Amino acid sequence: MATIQGLAVHAAGAELLPLKYDPGTLRPQDVEVRITHCGVCRSDVHLIDNDWGLSQYPFIPGHEIVGTVWQVGAAVAHLAMGERVGIGWQADSCGSCEWCRKGEENLCAQEQRTCVGRHGGYAEAVRVNARFAVKVPEALDSEAAAPLLCGGVTVYNPLRRFGVNPASRVGVIGIGGLGHLALQFARAFGAEVTAFSTSPAKEQEALALGAHRFVHSRDNKALKAVEGSQDLILSTINATQEWGAYLTALRPHGTLCLVGVPPAPVSVPAFPLVAEALCVCGSSTGSPALMAEMLDVAARHKVAARTEKFRMADANQALSRVRKNHVRYRAVLAN
Amino acid sequence: MATIQGLAVHAAGAELLPLKYDPGTLRPQDVEVRITHCGVCRSDVHLIDNDWGLSQYPFIPGHEIVGTVWQVGAAVAHLAMGERVGIGWQADSCGSCEWCRKGEENLCAQEQRTCVGRHGGYAEAVRVNARFAVKVPEALDSEAAAPLLCGGVTVYNPLRRFGVNPASRVGVIGIGGLGHLALQFARAFGAEVTAFSTSPAKEQEALALGAHRFVHSRDNKALKAVEGSQDLILSTINATQEWGAYLTALRPHGTLCLVGVPPAPVSVPAFPLVAEALCVCGSSTGSPALMAEMLDVAARHKVAARTEKFRMADANQALSRVRKNHVRYRAVLAN
Repeated sequence: MATIQGLAVHAAGAELLPLKYDPGTLRPQDVEVRITHCGVCRSDVHLIDNDWGLSQYPFIPGHEIVGTVWQVGAAVAHLAMGERVGIGWQADSCGSCEWCRKGEENLCAQEQRTCVGRHGGYAEAVRVNARFAVKVPEALDSEAAAPLLCGGVTVYNPLRRFGVNPASRVGVIGIGGLGHLALQFARAFGAEVTAFSTSPAKEQEALALGAHRFVHSRDNKALKAVEGSQDLILSTINATQEWGAYLTALRPHGTLCLVGVPPAPVSVPAFPLVAEALCVCGSSTGSPALMAEMLDVAARHKVAARTEKFRMADANQALSRVRKNHVRYRAVLAN
Repeated sequence: MATIQGLAVHAAGAELLPLKYDPGTLRPQDVEVRITHCGVCRSDVHLIDNDWGLSQYPFIPGHEIVGTVWQVGAAVAHLAMGERVGIGWQADSCGSCEWCRKGEENLCAQEQRTCVGRHGGYAEAVRVNARFAVKVPEALDSEAAAPLLCGGVTVYNPLRRFGVNPASRVGVIGIGGLGHLALQFARAFGAEVTAFSTSPAKEQEALALGAHRFVHSRDNKALKAVEGSQDLILSTINATQEWGAYLTALRPHGTLCLVGVPPAPVSVPAFPLVAEALCVCGSSTGSPALMAEMLDVAARHKVAARTEKFRMADANQALSRVRKNHVRYRAVLAN
């Protein structure tokens, strides 16, 4: 396309307004993807509000993209016109640093994020380095797959990194966009799965999504009952927690892994950390190779986002519901 | 021996006074070891002062013991009279839980610590479950080996757990009893080794012990120069630090591992934790199997504690120098 039509935010916290931009000449390493679906991730809200100080206005949010390859750069060999692909948080990287060479492009210091300093997926099309467009297996529905491209790989990454297996006990804090995918993936790994949530109303859904057990995380007695039981707890929420309470829920060698970024420093008591050999760590999205693997696992194990569909033109309405935590569990915009 | 003569502390912070106790009948699974050497670990000072609320008075401190098997319980098959053995932080465990069965007895919830609720190594003899008495390789000098039994295995454990290898970059915070052993072991693993210390006077010694580089940890410019360079940083100190500064020194996937217990909660910024996939973790001593392995590595790679020798009767004098951080690098009491 000569120009690309999208919905942009022009100032911190502002509503989306139509924006047409000229993407210029297609670089040899790029593809242009005509977007069919784009998930609304909470990170979009953080970028819209400039919570992380990264935003440059105007910009078009959106980084959970499924669409069709529409233009292929001259140097791209592995993608062809008309193929269905997914794009996540990352649109480009240096391609030559240690992390890019190792296939961990998400750790590249020069990474370019799909909608930071460039225009993302609340649009009719997007361009990225073809390395960051991954084929979507046929078995996956585009609407249910879009949220996997960021939310899915974000929770899948630590399950693989920490070697979750059928002997593992995995807890998931926060049953929202990321958490509801984490329950499904953890179950696919064969783990015993515990959902931690402040919303007792989500218990039945959490169990249906794969949890063996639901813990109301504001109920001290319920937390006490799972003391010393978990190998890995994924925190999918952005709010600051009593992290010490979750350390108590870990077994020796257990790991508390944050995939959401709370605003305040993470503070944990030192004694159990040392005595029980515990870990507190973070994890962020995943590489294209991991995204491809994750999509394949999702297809084979029927992991799918539970979505609310909005027309692209209704993106402001979707964002409003996301801000109120009303979406169960991921809003997806469709062209 | 019918009775065992030692030096006990009778109240929090008190001086050591002679104490004779009756160890009772030797259990079938126990050995009695006639002590030749006992290291003075900072944990002894914490126990003497009841900093951890664990101490029961009177008790005889000491848990870095080398000595000779003197009595062997009827059920003990692997040790014989006259063998030289070492004993560390742990004297017994349940023997049947998951961690004991896995050979990670140091994580047993029923573990008995050599000088907590029982009498330790500032004495002529000590009794422990024979499982926790490990043979000391011939090549090791008893005085230089005693501090390996707790301090040595404490720093060796995370080097093994986190897979340190010749491509690794390992930092050591605090060049004292534990730190001076950590430098030697990290070097034996082939790592690039950086010493972090508040004492510029220790630079030459740190380099002689195996460090490739010395960073004065109160010099912000020096810290800045090692930004993003370390795979694993071991903190061997008990004081609260600006942990965020050490996170900054880590590479992606890097780990900050505490083997000392600071008094305040460990607080780290969440953003780098997530974006760089960093870990903050703890580690405590090591199992008998790991102690045996560590002693073997020490023998083959000539890792030895730098010691100041005191007569057992002068234990108060040794403790006084430990309290003042005057010892370079480990006080050892000798019978």
